[in-house]
Amino acid sequence: MSISARDLGISVLAAGVMTLFSSGSAIAQKKEQLVRMARLTIDSAQLENYKAALKVGIETALRLEPGVLALYAVAEKNNPCRITILEIYASQEAYQSHVKTAHFLKYKNSTKDMVTSLELVDVDPLLAGMHLRQ
Amino acid sequence: MSISARDLGISVLAAGVMTLFSSGSAIAQKKEQLVRMARLTIDSAQLENYKAALKVGIETALRLEPGVLALYAVAEKNNPCRITILEIYASQEAYQSHVKTAHFLKYKNSTKDMVTSLELVDVDPLLAGMHLRQ
Repeated sequence: MSISARDLGISVLAAGVMTLFSSGSAIAQKKEQLVRMARLTIDSAQLENYKAALKVGIETALRLEPGVLALYAVAEKNNPCRITILEIYASQEAYQSHVKTAHFLKYKNSTKDMVTSLELVDVDPLLAGMHLRQ
Repeated sequence: MSISARDLGISVLAAGVMTLFSSGSAIAQKKEQLVRMARLTIDSAQLENYKAALKVGIETALRLEPGVLALYAVAEKNNPCRITILEIYASQEAYQSHVKTAHFLKYKNSTKDMVTSLELVDVDPLLAGMHLRQ
């Protein structure tokens, strides 16, 4: 789905326990993990400002929120205004908590006029239980 | 770019040291990391077989190749035949070594008729030095 940037803070993922991509005993322990890809296009004139705000938002979330397991953002080399963020949360509750934090709201509000398109794609991981580390 | 599945094994990324997305002292230590997104569409009739082969290929690579820092595959909930794989290699050399391994070649050959489209997107990470763990 494509939604406007101002909807980012109030977007709510489909409720319920995730049905994970693969099967196995490890899955049961991780079945509440919430994984999503955010695909954004940024106004090229504001790209550096956007990246700075996103970096602060991600670093703060990873430092302060144990339920935020990964926020891994990449820019396409051939089109740096196209950003993808892989988001992994420990649970639905961790996600709901994340979008209410001061650092997330600051990121959202400060970048709302920089984001020209936003697509949020709910996904199932092939292998459960992985997350990003620094 | 879109290339055929059979080209996967011989695709060669642009050579040279990556110019990373952001700046900072941590970047210099990680500047050789190679990050890419592979976006695939799978024949729906062969999706389960494809996922099984991909899972084995990823698990084997993560177990045997220290230079493969992440192969994180996700399927879109609304279109499970659309797969994205976030790939993080320690270096160009680690990537070149990976595509010559027996497990990668087995994955590639066994799935070549299952993959209906493949797009390889070279990317720059916003924050360097992160990778996936299990």
